[in-house]
Amino acid sequence: MKVVILINCPDQKGIISSVTGFIHANNGNIIYLDQHVDKSADVFFMRLESDFDGDGFNLELLKKNFQKELAVNYKMEWSIHTDSSKPKMALFVSKYNHCLYDLLSRFNSGELSVEIPFILSNHPDLKYVADQFNIPYFHVPFSKENREEGEAEQLSLLKKYKVDFIVLARYMQIVSSTLINEYPNKIINIHHSFLPAFAGAKPYHAAFKRGVKIIGATSHYVTEELDAGPIIEQDVTTVSHTHTISDFISKGRDLEKIVLSRAVKLHVLRKTMVYNNKTIIFS
Amino acid sequence: MKVVILINCPDQKGIISSVTGFIHANNGNIIYLDQHVDKSADVFFMRLESDFDGDGFNLELLKKNFQKELAVNYKMEWSIHTDSSKPKMALFVSKYNHCLYDLLSRFNSGELSVEIPFILSNHPDLKYVADQFNIPYFHVPFSKENREEGEAEQLSLLKKYKVDFIVLARYMQIVSSTLINEYPNKIINIHHSFLPAFAGAKPYHAAFKRGVKIIGATSHYVTEELDAGPIIEQDVTTVSHTHTISDFISKGRDLEKIVLSRAVKLHVLRKTMVYNNKTIIFS
Amino acid sequence: MKVVILINCPDQKGIISSVTGFIHANNGNIIYLDQHVDKSADVFFMRLESDFDGDGFNLELLKKNFQKELAVNYKMEWSIHTDSSKPKMALFVSKYNHCLYDLLSRFNSGELSVEIPFILSNHPDLKYVADQFNIPYFHVPFSKENREEGEAEQLSLLKKYKVDFIVLARYMQIVSSTLINEYPNKIINIHHSFLPAFAGAKPYHAAFKRGVKIIGATSHYVTEELDAGPIIEQDVTTVSHTHTISDFISKGRDLEKIVLSRAVKLHVLRKTMVYNNKTIIFS
Amino acid sequence: MKVVILINCPDQKGIISSVTGFIHANNGNIIYLDQHVDKSADVFFMRLESDFDGDGFNLELLKKNFQKELAVNYKMEWSIHTDSSKPKMALFVSKYNHCLYDLLSRFNSGELSVEIPFILSNHPDLKYVADQFNIPYFHVPFSKENREEGEAEQLSLLKKYKVDFIVLARYMQIVSSTLINEYPNKIINIHHSFLPAFAGAKPYHAAFKRGVKIIGATSHYVTEELDAGPIIEQDVTTVSHTHTISDFISKGRDLEKIVLSRAVKLHVLRKTMVYNNKTIIFS
Repeated sequence: MKVVILINCPDQKGIISSVTGFIHANNGNIIYLDQHVDKSADVFFMRLESDFDGDGFNLELLKKNFQKELAVNYKMEWSIHTDSSKPKMALFVSKYNHCLYDLLSRFNSGELSVEIPFILSNHPDLKYVADQFNIPYFHVPFSKENREEGEAEQLSLLKKYKVDFIVLARYMQIVSSTLINEYPNKIINIHHSFLPAFAGAKPYHAAFKRGVKIIGATSHYVTEELDAGPIIEQDVTTVSHTHTISDFISKGRDLEKIVLSRAVKLHVLRKTMVYNNKTIIFS
Repeated sequence: MKVVILINCPDQKGIISSVTGFIHANNGNIIYLDQHVDKSADVFFMRLESDFDGDGFNLELLKKNFQKELAVNYKMEWSIHTDSSKPKMALFVSKYNHCLYDLLSRFNSGELSVEIPFILSNHPDLKYVADQFNIPYFHVPFSKENREEGEAEQLSLLKKYKVDFIVLARYMQIVSSTLINEYPNKIINIHHSFLPAFAGAKPYHAAFKRGVKIIGATSHYVTEELDAGPIIEQDVTTVSHTHTISDFISKGRDLEKIVLSRAVKLHVLRKTMVYNNKTIIFS
Repeated sequence: MKVVILINCPDQKGIISSVTGFIHANNGNIIYLDQHVDKSADVFFMRLESDFDGDGFNLELLKKNFQKELAVNYKMEWSIHTDSSKPKMALFVSKYNHCLYDLLSRFNSGELSVEIPFILSNHPDLKYVADQFNIPYFHVPFSKENREEGEAEQLSLLKKYKVDFIVLARYMQIVSSTLINEYPNKIINIHHSFLPAFAGAKPYHAAFKRGVKIIGATSHYVTEELDAGPIIEQDVTTVSHTHTISDFISKGRDLEKIVLSRAVKLHVLRKTMVYNNKTIIFS
Repeated sequence: MKVVILINCPDQKGIISSVTGFIHANNGNIIYLDQHVDKSADVFFMRLESDFDGDGFNLELLKKNFQKELAVNYKMEWSIHTDSSKPKMALFVSKYNHCLYDLLSRFNSGELSVEIPFILSNHPDLKYVADQFNIPYFHVPFSKENREEGEAEQLSLLKKYKVDFIVLARYMQIVSSTLINEYPNKIINIHHSFLPAFAGAKPYHAAFKRGVKIIGATSHYVTEELDAGPIIEQDVTTVSHTHTISDFISKGRDLEKIVLSRAVKLHVLRKTMVYNNKTIIFS
């Protein structure tokens, strides 16, 4: 059985030695270790992948011992994950289909190891895509008046389907604080600019007006401050004076879908940790 | 003789046909033509390279006829350039030597077709580089008190040496409005961020704090608004949580020197035009 | 009406002037002109986009006059295209679905201005994708014995549906000379390496073995020599020692689909010309 | 004192635990650990950076204990390095100055922590650069007749100056087997193509002829097979039909110098290991 352990704690001597000794003593074989020290904050981060013999493997006992023998002593925040179940990913969309198609085709070919309980949208437009892939589609419209009902319906669906994390695949609607607090560092957004440049609405128009020679896309965890959450992944492509705003939008679509998919994969593989509004991305 | 013509004028039917007909009628051979229409502003831009037989070629007559036969009719702003003389480029530096070395080594190998009458600095530190390359070095210090004398000395040197354009090769001092107005779209700066992100001081520190995954450098013409002039060239490189601020600075240096040199080359080859605070970069 | 003209001919003085004069005389308005001279071969290439008033526009007359007034004199090869009909694109696939999904989702959102009369495959596996998008799917199996029948069936389908060009979207079967000769510079392939490195089978395995730090994908027109046709588009991504062959394959998929789609768009917009086994890609 | 340990050995359970335990037991503090397992070869690689208290630190004792307590048991190949001395780097050049200037300006600004005992060339042309930087320049000409004397002189200089590694900064002369065997994985070359494409002479000409849309540069350790040694670093830039061979060469120069400098820095920081003709590049 493959076991992933994520740790962060105040930095001090001997952590790696203690943790690797613990795995060894529990008959695990470390197949990957990546660690990072944030020197300004004096915090230690580690991601470990280990193989444990399936026979007689007791996850609860491992967790209990980890807590007792390591976590208390080193003041660790930690989590242990196995590959025995797939995380449940909800997709929120509006009217653009490119990110949705990209994620669903990866899901279909087995590249994304998740379950997709439903697709939710504030518009009815993309139901046909959900139908193509046989995934339930919930249309939860939003207006100034029904804001609270809409949020309540979102939360109710997320709970009913036991959703683990949410991907905003070009969902053009502000996500409520309630939702953000229910899913801290578990809502992944794609913003169609090279953040922090051009945060907010209409970034391609702003980029065109400024006359930049490169445009980008940024995937980040959603926090209460708009477009200011921890960045997971960014990529860019060149533009020139020959490109119109609609060329920017068209070139940008290819960035958006690739950048969002990479971020989702990193999250699913538990290769991301968040600290001080920044991410550590393990290799 | 190689002749470059740059034109901009209100867009209308027949401009290309008229201009190419003019060249043809004057026994020129068009070896390159690039044109662009800014549709929102309805402005036409063109860059033409032509070969004219050197014998009997009369530049002044060509200009006179161009004005009479084309420019008046089409309300053109235009300029005509030949390769018979090299532009004079002044280099302004402070303490970092990487952009300076990069430009001087290109100059030395003939890659940059310019003259360099002098290097000017607000610090004495880089005189040794100027000495290595046998170029005059003027130390013009700046303080709150001597601001006006400093600017006057700069202007006097620029006039005395008939400087055509100025390159700020990591010159860490605000350039005065007087200088900017004397050299409109003729002062090239390198800013060590992917503008408009992280304008102003200490962009690498700001990028580090924001946790971006890509850093950049931007070369632009200097205007009165800080770091907001027309962008000539940008490039980027990836970073990760493993990089410290000093890694950002070190990786950024390679971007800065390459991006600045590309911008300088574009300017020297007269491949840049400025309109509405944006550049057209001809291919 | 938008009219695109593609020209190539021996280089000589006055071509641009004559062609733009012709357009002007026929009441067309040039909205874009890009030209290139291959100096070693002394050949001139041009792509023109013009607007003609729809009322009274006579395409056949324009072609006749173009031939008479320009083409004969300058020994031009040329073609004239309008946007009044969409080209018919056949998709050939095998078992991988990523390029297919990518092209179909672009088709669906209107990004690709083509008709797709059918998808053809040497395997039955991807019929479900064709069904999702309501496009006919023809399974034409290939074996050593049925080679000729297979080719005949391909050709018969292509003719029956009046296919204009073919996209090999990871079609893992050698295309016959007959087909290549029927569709010269009209069959677009995606090869999963940075050609000319790693031509032939299993390029990711070869790249892994060589220990490269960057992998690529190449889209090209198919010629009789395997993986040696004119290159339309290439792109790359970084890899490291931490990546396995299956990581190469996974990262490569994102390159393949983006690079292939870009090439298809360039072809559809008639921005490609082929000469001496190389492409001119107009901007 | 900063201590870097490099290890490779057959993979087995418990290595990380044993090594980190050893460091801990010797009062070292691990500040960085990166490990890699080549699963096809079943080989384990590790790079460790540790801090040891300078007082009472005994490097020889540490090495002796490492050998006795770890290396014998795990069949390790290993090396231990401290930052108490700088490696000696010889530069071999021919006629191009861009890589040379780039390395020397980095050396000058403290970015490259090495000593440069001399520059050696088969031509006299670049002596002026050596003079600018006050570094000895040895002109060792090569012809068919004097091949052996030339090689002997090279070796004699390398020994006399106790050179640790050699950088071929566009040295256009085949390096002898004797030299390669004296400096295994210690001669760094820059090849001006995206290897394995266009190995051998005149790669830019070959790339131009093939009509590629991207060109590259590759830095690698020199082995007896030409341009086939372990790749350290690669980078690329886009080209188009508008670029001539001399444009390829000019754009390529910027790649060459950046790629070579990155490789040299990785080598100096002992972040490279070679196995099966491939490199592991630690982060």
